[in-house]
Amino acid sequence: MTQRIPIAVAYGDGIGPEIMKATLDIIQTAGANIEIETVEIGEKVYLRGIETGMDPNAWELLRRTKVFLKAPITTPQGGGYKSLNVTTRKALGLYANVRPSVSYSPFVHTKHPVMNVVIIRENEEDLYAGIEHRQTDQVYQCLKLITRPGSEKVIRYAFEYARANGRKKVTCFVKDNIMKLTDGLFHKVFDETAAAYPDIENELWIVDIGAAKLADTPEHFDVIVMPNLYGDVLSDVAAQIAGSVGLAGSSNIGEQCAMFEAIHGSAPRRAGQNLANPSGLLLAAVMMLVHIGQSEVAARVHNAWLKTIEDGIHTYDIFKEGVSRQKAGTAEFAAAVIRRLGDVP
Amino acid sequence: MTQRIPIAVAYGDGIGPEIMKATLDIIQTAGANIEIETVEIGEKVYLRGIETGMDPNAWELLRRTKVFLKAPITTPQGGGYKSLNVTTRKALGLYANVRPSVSYSPFVHTKHPVMNVVIIRENEEDLYAGIEHRQTDQVYQCLKLITRPGSEKVIRYAFEYARANGRKKVTCFVKDNIMKLTDGLFHKVFDETAAAYPDIENELWIVDIGAAKLADTPEHFDVIVMPNLYGDVLSDVAAQIAGSVGLAGSSNIGEQCAMFEAIHGSAPRRAGQNLANPSGLLLAAVMMLVHIGQSEVAARVHNAWLKTIEDGIHTYDIFKEGVSRQKAGTAEFAAAVIRRLGDVP
Ligand SMILES: CC(C)[C@H](C(=O)O)[C@@H](O)C(=O)O
Ligand SMILES: CC(C)[C@H](C(=O)O)[C@@H](O)C(=O)O
Repeated sequence: MTQRIPIAVAYGDGIGPEIMKATLDIIQTAGANIEIETVEIGEKVYLRGIETGMDPNAWELLRRTKVFLKAPITTPQGGGYKSLNVTTRKALGLYANVRPSVSYSPFVHTKHPVMNVVIIRENEEDLYAGIEHRQTDQVYQCLKLITRPGSEKVIRYAFEYARANGRKKVTCFVKDNIMKLTDGLFHKVFDETAAAYPDIENELWIVDIGAAKLADTPEHFDVIVMPNLYGDVLSDVAAQIAGSVGLAGSSNIGEQCAMFEAIHGSAPRRAGQNLANPSGLLLAAVMMLVHIGQSEVAARVHNAWLKTIEDGIHTYDIFKEGVSRQKAGTAEFAAAVIRRLGDVP
Repeated sequence: MTQRIPIAVAYGDGIGPEIMKATLDIIQTAGANIEIETVEIGEKVYLRGIETGMDPNAWELLRRTKVFLKAPITTPQGGGYKSLNVTTRKALGLYANVRPSVSYSPFVHTKHPVMNVVIIRENEEDLYAGIEHRQTDQVYQCLKLITRPGSEKVIRYAFEYARANGRKKVTCFVKDNIMKLTDGLFHKVFDETAAAYPDIENELWIVDIGAAKLADTPEHFDVIVMPNLYGDVLSDVAAQIAGSVGLAGSSNIGEQCAMFEAIHGSAPRRAGQNLANPSGLLLAAVMMLVHIGQSEVAARVHNAWLKTIEDGIHTYDIFKEGVSRQKAGTAEFAAAVIRRLGDVP
């Protein structure tokens, strides 16, 4: 047996521990050759007074493993806590956030049966730079930052991703009829980069009408690259209309490190009830397995997951009379996936 | 006959002149008691070197009539031209942009047959404040501005609007888990204002998952108030999934003045072909007629328009085999509406 690949794992808050357990059970049974190193993050760490929500020692671990599988966390209200997601993305230089949204029609109910969109969102800049201030009691400002290197990295990644994954088109969303400098720069870099990939079709939409087209006719799109905030909003839109935000995994890609997570939150009200859908985190783990070179295990897990979904074994969030066949809790869903690990694709 | 109400009218660019002619023909035949004063704006004015796209004398006219019916305009690419829409909204203090999206199922094809959402977008602040700069060749910034007075005005307007229109709920979209100061202020003002309207239900969504819910289950929402940029993007999403952005009118409300316009653009490639759907501008004109106290004429026009749509007389943008009955050009559509002006509701 080859040496196991160390990965950092955070169980997170709310439904985090349940879906992480399900995910790890599945991928380990499938034969993932990994060495799990747990990091403590989120609510408990925040409440110990650590503003970032991450134990300072954890950074050292993440920089060593370079691979991080992260469950959703809860940021306590008030108290000036920073978003750990944002802190991590910036601290580890995770410049591209890759969010596929796929329809599983007719097995999962959707109004958009033909949908296979990958949104690649810039992941460090924009209004997420976190530069905000209060000018007077009445006037607050937040700085939107767009840089050429940041734009170049994520846009080039989008075209490379398209090429590596047999995708035909990369679309860019910006609002440069208003933000002529910032979004104008993103647009310009898109045009420059597109010229270097003549094999990939490219197009540009103003984000308002682009979002409308995406919500109405998602089959028009293939890969879409955009600044951070648009990508945040529109990746939730895309995932939800494909079936559920609960079905979407994501990877956060940097030059050194990568982080894998579901796109949904920690849903504290569902916690501890064996209700949550582990699919988002599981599909993120599949992306992780591909990333660390264990594509065969990834394919086995993905196939077993797909069979489970196709067999109508659905958690409450995607359960629909006439489409689903069996309502499963988190643990039963995971067991069903594990039973199908040997199935032929 | 009572004195006619003077209104400023801009024919705009692209498809603007055609849809404005159709709109004015319909409302004048319906008995609108208005005196039209034409203002020249848009492409021709820009190209005369006027950065705002509006003749300086036009401001005087707008401030006098206080009512402005505006067709879409084209802003030439490059050259540092400012958006006239934005300039007008700010110059006239039009703080609330009201954008209803209604499904006309089964008469107009939609995947969301039960939809009647009004998005009220803050209209002067946010990234639209237009404060952008280049720090280095590689680094650009844009300032997002949120003020207490600006937030108070639009949020109070949303609750007043709900009350006056028999609406039950006002929802707020913000991203204050990230923008704790700016969107945090908007959120805070929303909570304060909501407390003063105990007869109206209120709720708050983070904009990412709120947008996902809107795109998937628009029937959940009633009135939604939000900062400028979210409102720009999500009003296009809402209008399009209800049927078409071509069916949505809007009002821009200020303390002194009001501007009425379609939410779509000037579609230069469709110009001069008698193709464009005048419905967005016509429904904006209906809002204008209500605003100037001519509700009866407004109702007559709205009813005739609805009958035309229900009779399946559709412009190309909403034409669908099996749903529509007759494909109409702009002029034929207008004639069909005019023929139905006497119809009983
Ligand atoms: C939790 C939040 C900070 C985060 C974001 O806005 O990026 C989330 O919405 C996401 O999309 O991953
Ligand atoms: C044309 C553009 C400046 C405008 C905006 O962004 O407000 C338009 O998209 C709108 O929604 O009215």
